[in-house]
Parts: sequence; structure tokens; C-alpha cells
Amino acid sequence: MSEVIDFGKTDGLVPVVVQDDTSGAVLMLAYMNRAAFERTVASGYATYWSRSRRTFWVKGETSGNRQRVRAIHVDCDGDTILLRVEQQGGAACHEGYESCFFRRLDGETWRVIAERVVDPASLYPPKP
Amino acid sequence: MSEVIDFGKTDGLVPVVVQDDTSGAVLMLAYMNRAAFERTVASGYATYWSRSRRTFWVKGETSGNRQRVRAIHVDCDGDTILLRVEQQGGAACHEGYESCFFRRLDGETWRVIAERVVDPASLYPPKP
Repeated sequence: MSEVIDFGKTDGLVPVVVQDDTSGAVLMLAYMNRAAFERTVASGYATYWSRSRRTFWVKGETSGNRQRVRAIHVDCDGDTILLRVEQQGGAACHEGYESCFFRRLDGETWRVIAERVVDPASLYPPKP
Repeated sequence: MSEVIDFGKTDGLVPVVVQDDTSGAVLMLAYMNRAAFERTVASGYATYWSRSRRTFWVKGETSGNRQRVRAIHVDCDGDTILLRVEQQGGAACHEGYESCFFRRLDGETWRVIAERVVDPASLYPPKP
């Protein structure tokens, strides 16, 4: 089933739009290579490829805010995935917001238009 | 206001998630460079950068199914845009579906889970 997805365009990666299956909010954008896609399907939890760390990234592995997969869609060109998830812990964003898209353009100014749902310090507590 | 957006990561382009402002459906993913972003803001209609044709792409310029901008969001890292739009003509996808993500994984099979809202032939009629 991963054959439908075109991993050939951008260094073996496809962008993944992540949408909350209940609220419909667009939570974040991440990337998958074929192996991350297959791990996501097999485990039922979102697993991405971190472009900066160059490693698999099980979303929420550190914070506990994992993403349970509810549905996986592919677009007409086969080069983008839409993942509908149950966002555990209520926050997808490392800054403590439900969605990473918490800033909206208002005239010429970006304004924060959401309330934090969790304290970011609680997501990544300092190691003892 | 485009200074907040990090156009430096991928050949001057950022991915743009396009969401219907009314239905909440994720319609498509496209790309903008800084100039396309500024044209979008100035015109109020979604203008992307076509990676394949290497040119600006006013969505709906041919089909008439333009996207009126309702809101522009940026993510925490400043490297992805979320565009909330009014999708004119009801279909964002060139195949005649509301959303380009009309296929969903069902076991190991991708199934079409939406109905066409317009005849694709009517979107791009043959030139006389």
C-alpha cells in the first residue's frame, strides 16, 4: 500500500498534514519516508522522520502526547499524506498549544489566537 | 510580515496546508515562495508556486475554482503555512473532488471515500 505514495520527489520524504479527527483542527505538518509510513501503519501511532535530527520520531515519545491514527488519506498526486489522529494530551505543539498553527495574520501582524492547553515545561521536564 | 516565515529550508519554498474555512476539510497541499505569499496577501486569492511548471499558479485561474483567503496561519517553527479559504466552485481537486485527499487506506487498499462534486471535464474543457 505504500506503493501509491510517491516518495521520490523530496529526498525520499513526503509531507504529512496532521488533523485532529474530532475537532478537525490542523495540528501540524511533519514528514515521513517509506519506513516511517510503514511503522505508522504497523503501530497505529504517528511516526515521522525528523529532518533536523535525521532519525525516526515517534511523536509524543518524550512528552507522552502521542497521536493515535484514526485514518490515513493520500492525495490525488500521491505525494502528500493526510493523517487523522486522536491527539493524546490535547496538545500537538511543543509550545503547549493544541495546534502548531496558533498564530494568524492580522493586517501586517502575526497574533497568537489560541490559548495554551498545557504548560510547555510539563511536556519536557528537565532531566534530574 | 513575511519575515516570520522561514523560506530558507527548501529551495525558498514553504508547504501550504489549505483548509476549507467552512467545512474544515483539508483540501490540498501546495507551495509558496515569498513572492507567492505576498501576492496571496495582496490579492486575497491563493497564489502558489508550481514546482513542476516553475511559475506562479493562481489556483483556479483556468477552472474558475479560485480560493478566497479567509485566514492565514503560520506554525511554531515558521516553516509551514495554513491557509483557510472559501473554495469557489466547491472542488479544490482537479479530479473534481472537494478535497485532493479523497482516498483513504482501508486495510491494505486505498479506497475512494468521496463523491465527485463536479465533472473534471467541466473544469478543464478542451480548447476550441
